[in-house]
Amino acid sequence: MNETLSDVLEIIAPVDKEIVTKARGRTAQLVMPPRALGKLHDIAEKLCGIGGTLSPDVNKKAILVFAGDHGVAREGVSAYPQDITAMMVGTFLAGGAGINALARHAGAEVLVVDMGIAKALAVKALPNTDKLRMQSIAKGTRNFTRAPAMTRKQAEEAVMKGFLVASESFAQGCHLIGTGDMGIGNTTASAGIGMCVCKASIDDMVGRGTGVDSEGLARKKSVVVKALELHQPSADDGLDVLAKVGGFEIGGIAGCILAAAFHKKPVVVDGFISTAGALIAHLLCAHCVDYMFAGHLSEEPGHGIMLKHLGLEPILQLGMRLGEGTGAALAMGIIDAAVHVHTDVMTFAEANRQARLVSD
Amino acid sequence: MNETLSDVLEIIAPVDKEIVTKARGRTAQLVMPPRALGKLHDIAEKLCGIGGTLSPDVNKKAILVFAGDHGVAREGVSAYPQDITAMMVGTFLAGGAGINALARHAGAEVLVVDMGIAKALAVKALPNTDKLRMQSIAKGTRNFTRAPAMTRKQAEEAVMKGFLVASESFAQGCHLIGTGDMGIGNTTASAGIGMCVCKASIDDMVGRGTGVDSEGLARKKSVVVKALELHQPSADDGLDVLAKVGGFEIGGIAGCILAAAFHKKPVVVDGFISTAGALIAHLLCAHCVDYMFAGHLSEEPGHGIMLKHLGLEPILQLGMRLGEGTGAALAMGIIDAAVHVHTDVMTFAEANRQARLVSD
Repeated sequence: MNETLSDVLEIIAPVDKEIVTKARGRTAQLVMPPRALGKLHDIAEKLCGIGGTLSPDVNKKAILVFAGDHGVAREGVSAYPQDITAMMVGTFLAGGAGINALARHAGAEVLVVDMGIAKALAVKALPNTDKLRMQSIAKGTRNFTRAPAMTRKQAEEAVMKGFLVASESFAQGCHLIGTGDMGIGNTTASAGIGMCVCKASIDDMVGRGTGVDSEGLARKKSVVVKALELHQPSADDGLDVLAKVGGFEIGGIAGCILAAAFHKKPVVVDGFISTAGALIAHLLCAHCVDYMFAGHLSEEPGHGIMLKHLGLEPILQLGMRLGEGTGAALAMGIIDAAVHVHTDVMTFAEANRQARLVSD
Repeated sequence: MNETLSDVLEIIAPVDKEIVTKARGRTAQLVMPPRALGKLHDIAEKLCGIGGTLSPDVNKKAILVFAGDHGVAREGVSAYPQDITAMMVGTFLAGGAGINALARHAGAEVLVVDMGIAKALAVKALPNTDKLRMQSIAKGTRNFTRAPAMTRKQAEEAVMKGFLVASESFAQGCHLIGTGDMGIGNTTASAGIGMCVCKASIDDMVGRGTGVDSEGLARKKSVVVKALELHQPSADDGLDVLAKVGGFEIGGIAGCILAAAFHKKPVVVDGFISTAGALIAHLLCAHCVDYMFAGHLSEEPGHGIMLKHLGLEPILQLGMRLGEGTGAALAMGIIDAAVHVHTDVMTFAEANRQARLVSD
């Protein structure tokens, strides 16, 4: 893969609408009232369009957890200290986090990508480092209340690193990728992206994240307002928004989504932070929404606004707000089920033939 | 099992609230912000209460599809002819229906219970009859626009047959049962139950079922109004409501739910028809709600009213309206995932120990 970002963006194309029409024809023949399984049909047909096939395969799955730290964490915007980012990377590799339990249940591999963790990872002492991808851009972003989070060059680098890691998984036969995130402070960065891109109000977009108290919430809001006033990111320039108020892991997620669209594979976007990445990907190339599924609706209040902006309906609504890719992993089970309905259920003709055999 | 219905109702008890408190303590220790996986925690803790254990097991699963015909089908309340009920039983046994695809995906066995199908089943010619339970009460209910659907004795018989079939599954080691239904005309019967028990309006409770046109919808509404006026079922007497406007398969579902509560096992209630059965079970014994999960919110408009009446929140909302147990089967995947989160995720203490080992 030697593509530049502009090569990638040029190649991404909309999905094949003709196959979607054919897939709807198959749905109409299934032995049930018309479209009686609701969104399961929509999901299966979207997969058909993405892959250009009437027999989509989502068997081999992976969750890519992009991790990075945020200079803005110094402003007291999180209920947890920055060291938690590195600690959780160790927990992911040890298989003990929420995402590990849910990915195992979904039959998905968990890969962890260091996009820019502040603390040096003791790689030699970590378990299962075959699941770790070292793509660190810097030891965390800058505090964006004072300076842009990163340079425009670093923003492009973050996107392309995400693109490359995901492309590698697709090259190894992965059919379906889910995005995940880890980074203390990243709901603040995501709120900044969401507010800028979706033109939302501060109260609608900033929530409690991991669970800050009311003072912390007020600090988060003033931090986001300050950063947007200071840097004035251009709401139609994905790299500008990412550079000024984003994060390295958010850039990686955007690149992962672009990779899915580039390789004509489906991607399940997790919650608030992943969808901030999806907003960046969408600004870079609007077609990539064709390849996205929204795994769930997060408890974080701004998430619904982001999804509406992208025109995506969440598959699950379970009051979750963990990130890590947990909503994506859980939704993979539904996506899997949708494929089974589409491919395994008899048609009315087959069921009638079966019934005639029985009564003969 | 020689219990009478009154024995069963006497033995059913509320769940152990102390274990639920202990389970919440375990959730609080998991390596994530407090209750960050939302309803997954609620589900796991409810399972702990049901089984009286901190390590609930939902590995062995079954969907019990109760099938029966309805005299009221003669009033033109369905988009499909009555023969479809028997045909679909053949499809279930052949493994080709929506419920088969979704139950396979959930790892659940599908059992089909003939509670009173109008057409004689050609049992010798049917495939996989080891999955068929013959519990027929009559060749369909009576047309309840003219006479009660069944006698009170038949209503009790239907409930106890459902109880026995489900008890047999639990005795064979099943951990989790999902309810399913098949019966042309049964959204009309279910709407009658819902309107009577939930005191809902006819417009809120009667929907298009398998997809009747506007004339069919008007017929359904007038049929339900007529039946309730004619029979005046007593809204606090489950057997009276079931006998006057119910169905054999709905009675079977009510009995299946009572069996779960009796054996202290969880039951996933499917959509509109199954929840009508749950309303009957709840009238017979209010404690049984403690043992129920609502698999999904059906597209059928009255379903949300029924769930609210029972105080249950649906796990999924995917615009489904097939019945057969499909919403229950799909929700089993989420319930399974909730158990894995509860039992497999590290505590903060374990994750910290892991992190210290790494940095030493």
